[in-house]
Amino acid sequence: MTLPHSQPPGSASSGTRNDRLPTEKRGLPATYDADRAAVVAEMRRLVSLASTGVGALCAYHLGWADATGAPAEAPAGKMLRPTLCLAVCRGYGDAGQAVGVAAAIELVHAFSLVHDDIEDGDHLRHGRTTLWVTAGLPLALNAGDFLFGLANRALCEAAQALPPDRRSEAFELFTTAYLRMIEGQHLDIEFEQRDRVTPEEYARMVRGKTGALIGASLALGALFGGAPVTDVATLREAGVELGLAFQAVDDALAVWGDPAVTGKAVGNDLARGKKSLPLVLAVERGWTPADGGADSLEALRAAFEQLGVREAVDRFARGRADRALERLHATQMRPEARSVLEELFAFVLTRQS
Amino acid sequence: MTLPHSQPPGSASSGTRNDRLPTEKRGLPATYDADRAAVVAEMRRLVSLASTGVGALCAYHLGWADATGAPAEAPAGKMLRPTLCLAVCRGYGDAGQAVGVAAAIELVHAFSLVHDDIEDGDHLRHGRTTLWVTAGLPLALNAGDFLFGLANRALCEAAQALPPDRRSEAFELFTTAYLRMIEGQHLDIEFEQRDRVTPEEYARMVRGKTGALIGASLALGALFGGAPVTDVATLREAGVELGLAFQAVDDALAVWGDPAVTGKAVGNDLARGKKSLPLVLAVERGWTPADGGADSLEALRAAFEQLGVREAVDRFARGRADRALERLHATQMRPEARSVLEELFAFVLTRQS
Repeated sequence: MTLPHSQPPGSASSGTRNDRLPTEKRGLPATYDADRAAVVAEMRRLVSLASTGVGALCAYHLGWADATGAPAEAPAGKMLRPTLCLAVCRGYGDAGQAVGVAAAIELVHAFSLVHDDIEDGDHLRHGRTTLWVTAGLPLALNAGDFLFGLANRALCEAAQALPPDRRSEAFELFTTAYLRMIEGQHLDIEFEQRDRVTPEEYARMVRGKTGALIGASLALGALFGGAPVTDVATLREAGVELGLAFQAVDDALAVWGDPAVTGKAVGNDLARGKKSLPLVLAVERGWTPADGGADSLEALRAAFEQLGVREAVDRFARGRADRALERLHATQMRPEARSVLEELFAFVLTRQS
Repeated sequence: MTLPHSQPPGSASSGTRNDRLPTEKRGLPATYDADRAAVVAEMRRLVSLASTGVGALCAYHLGWADATGAPAEAPAGKMLRPTLCLAVCRGYGDAGQAVGVAAAIELVHAFSLVHDDIEDGDHLRHGRTTLWVTAGLPLALNAGDFLFGLANRALCEAAQALPPDRRSEAFELFTTAYLRMIEGQHLDIEFEQRDRVTPEEYARMVRGKTGALIGASLALGALFGGAPVTDVATLREAGVELGLAFQAVDDALAVWGDPAVTGKAVGNDLARGKKSLPLVLAVERGWTPADGGADSLEALRAAFEQLGVREAVDRFARGRADRALERLHATQMRPEARSVLEELFAFVLTRQS
């Protein structure tokens, strides 16, 4: 199969391939709502283990409570990682086997967002005040640490259901992904101070920052489903490639997205010197802030489009998603599950938020 | 046995018990230098796994590099936790069995200090600029996350040497200690905003913040030495009590200690509203900032001493250390190893920094 375009119809690159899937805006398919509900229930159980106010801070970050601690139902995150994890697990066993590890993965993701918001000084996420703005930096930083501890707890508990000879494989995958994610985050922050970052450096950073955890989502889903070791490794690679596509789309949305849909203030990252893919590719094409665009987002969009940056970002995302698909097809996964993953990969490319 | 006084001779409570051990100032016995060297070597190996600049930040925090990344030998921390861990392990098996897990524990401790310094806004530790001041908050926060990831990695690797049926016990002890530590830290920060904290609340906070990891140090040392499950649990309790004694002494040093020896600016914590034990006990005795002491540390010391706070802190520390000793004596540990631990417990009470 081929993947749909990452840009809606009307962008320069659309229509150049014969897409099997439509290109209209879409959310994660509702078919996975039950999976997501199971993972959220497990996350809620884990957060409820807290015996101090740190639990309420986690609940706020996760959208389950407002700033006063009262129950709330803020729009949840996409929960892409647990959804991928369960979808892969279903390709080898029963999705229920991966609920615990999927909760662990989403808790790692939640932890990373809490710390990321502090590191980037961001005030808004999903249209809500970030935790450090709400609770103050010290308690928020510490609540992020707690979320990661809960992720570890979830993994320890989940691993009990694995055959004993595969438990260390789970811890190894999980810990390696975590360390790579933190190293990618290091590069992301470090790059803010640099004038120029090559596309190769960008890819290295994103393989860690975004790819590692998405890779682990697929790999752990396979492991908990009982997949052979080679498929676990292949799916990890698929996830890393998918993570690169995911981040490229994320970066494009930061420039061309609709803040009302993304819930983020567009242009913030650029102002801070974040080396997003559009910027990296524009600089590679000779663009400098003096060429215009530094004064307004509209001007920047125009300058980048003129340089063909938008199509280049699209090609990058599509190329990485194609590699992810190749890996997917190299596994022994059940065909029905593979189709589901193709749909999820397509979502990553076409999402609008 | 009874433990020596936590205050040097001349403090009001000294001489009231017949101490077996001398009360003079002491550091951790040099006998354990080889143990500490083995743990540091393991920590260095783990930090060297970093493929980005995050490794240099960790090395700076650990005293192995200066701010430019050049090798340095800053005065190391006490490494009390790994020393306790190996000493307990020796009570059941060979100390070498616990080197990996001791490195994991010290890396958790290092992680907690990096985040603690950010949360408290501290500029100095062991007489050196803290990591967030040196590297900036975003990279330092992230480096703290990396140190915890390395701790996880160390534990995963170390656990391979355990009999398979005891591996989950190790992960359980480690993760529970981590979560309790973070909850204690939450209370510590939260208490800054309160006028009054009871001694019971203080003890609850410290059981988490300080006790949990020291408890895990003893428990994991026992587990890796092959101790029976009941001894592991008893030694965990001993470590938690020892942690309470440790923190009480720490709090006393923050008021009565010599900054040239402690490497910390005395009085900082009080100014920030930290609920240290001297303050908690003084408030319980009716002291308020209006009674004097808010203007200078000298005046505060005088006010606290008049209220008998110094002796009360000493009694608290001694009482907790005595409970730790009771637990120690309830185990089947080899007698030689028990004597060594008695010496280490005594160090906790009499240390000057």
